[in-house]
Amino acid sequence: MKKTELLYEGKAKKVFKTDDENMLIVSYKDDATAFNGVKKGSIQDKGSINNRVSNYLMGLLEKKGIPTHIVEEINDRETVVKKVQIVPLEVIVRNIAAGSLSKRLGLEEGTKLDKTVLEYCYKKDELGDPMVNDFHIYALSLATKEELDKISEMSFKINEILSEYFDSINIELIDFKLEFGRTADGTVILADEISPDTCRYWDKTTGEKLDKDRFRRDLGNVEGAYQEILKRTLGDS
Amino acid sequence: MKKTELLYEGKAKKVFKTDDENMLIVSYKDDATAFNGVKKGSIQDKGSINNRVSNYLMGLLEKKGIPTHIVEEINDRETVVKKVQIVPLEVIVRNIAAGSLSKRLGLEEGTKLDKTVLEYCYKKDELGDPMVNDFHIYALSLATKEELDKISEMSFKINEILSEYFDSINIELIDFKLEFGRTADGTVILADEISPDTCRYWDKTTGEKLDKDRFRRDLGNVEGAYQEILKRTLGDS
Repeated sequence: MKKTELLYEGKAKKVFKTDDENMLIVSYKDDATAFNGVKKGSIQDKGSINNRVSNYLMGLLEKKGIPTHIVEEINDRETVVKKVQIVPLEVIVRNIAAGSLSKRLGLEEGTKLDKTVLEYCYKKDELGDPMVNDFHIYALSLATKEELDKISEMSFKINEILSEYFDSINIELIDFKLEFGRTADGTVILADEISPDTCRYWDKTTGEKLDKDRFRRDLGNVEGAYQEILKRTLGDS
Repeated sequence: MKKTELLYEGKAKKVFKTDDENMLIVSYKDDATAFNGVKKGSIQDKGSINNRVSNYLMGLLEKKGIPTHIVEEINDRETVVKKVQIVPLEVIVRNIAAGSLSKRLGLEEGTKLDKTVLEYCYKKDELGDPMVNDFHIYALSLATKEELDKISEMSFKINEILSEYFDSINIELIDFKLEFGRTADGTVILADEISPDTCRYWDKTTGEKLDKDRFRRDLGNVEGAYQEILKRTLGDS
């Protein structure tokens, strides 16, 4: 498969059209941004780590029955994915209070939530990706009720699978962001990525943050955290 | 019934205990605040207008099967209400985009929403009453699923009744805020008030705002708007 034209360049990825109209190639960048692009930087090897970690995690999910957009990893930082129409929602799954949830609801970071919380944010940079509820989603026609039911069901199932998996490598899955897409026939499948850019995970023993918060909050050893996640997931492969 | 001690003084109302432990007396003030108390002022006769208008509207709702906390209007600005435990949620019902919804979602004020939108805000002044979704409500134990189902069902029904009523007096009901309470036996009933302080309504012919936005946005003739609502609802009584 060959890249033809650059379809889109985002903060962390480039997406190319290919000679197969149903397939795209995603190329992960080392660029890092935070706070809706206000903070900018670069994290060494982030592109290849995120590509490989995300493909590995999506592979686990596929085996457990979650359909994803992944087709084939073609090199360290590039992967062929199914072309989908992205549902313009960021779905945030939260097990432990952290980040914006802590601030907004006055819950100390690290507070275990009695029940898993899903949040939806409307993907719209110029509005700062505002949080929306089901009613907003229907009023703005961002997704149908059937789609949203499917998305929430899949999100809870993904959380179960990933929480169990990360527990097995001594990591606590605090929260993570998902995006979904519609295939040509309207099926909703998991898209985007699952990586240290899109998750919060803390070492279960030391509590050390092994994710993008090290970049956001200037905690140091950002590369080390990404490398650690690569090592615990894919091993020394 | 006699007022005994002041139980609570809010921005727009005082609430007194009475010699009946199941009843409270609400006393409406002329004080006006906006933006979570940052803007302060006073609107002549607001207390008595809100008391009378709110009791009138709640009376309409009672007739249509919505249980409310209203017991008896005892004078122009005071009403006996059932003592309830307030569910710590502001329920906002929106038919037309305005105010914070317009800003957050980038919808021009006045845009008709395809479907009625409900929003829930966690009543917590020190957090600025943040918007929450069902999952936050359950995780924070603000209401049970059964209560929230009841609250949303009642809110939609109240919207139908009030929209039809306001239409009959040439007013478009843009949005409004409701609060609910639990009685001693756990029944959820409508509490708080429904008034120009808690609704947005626009004259259907001229589009003129007849609500607290005149105060919030320094539009002038604030008293006139409140008087106009009193006149259209209770007539010259």
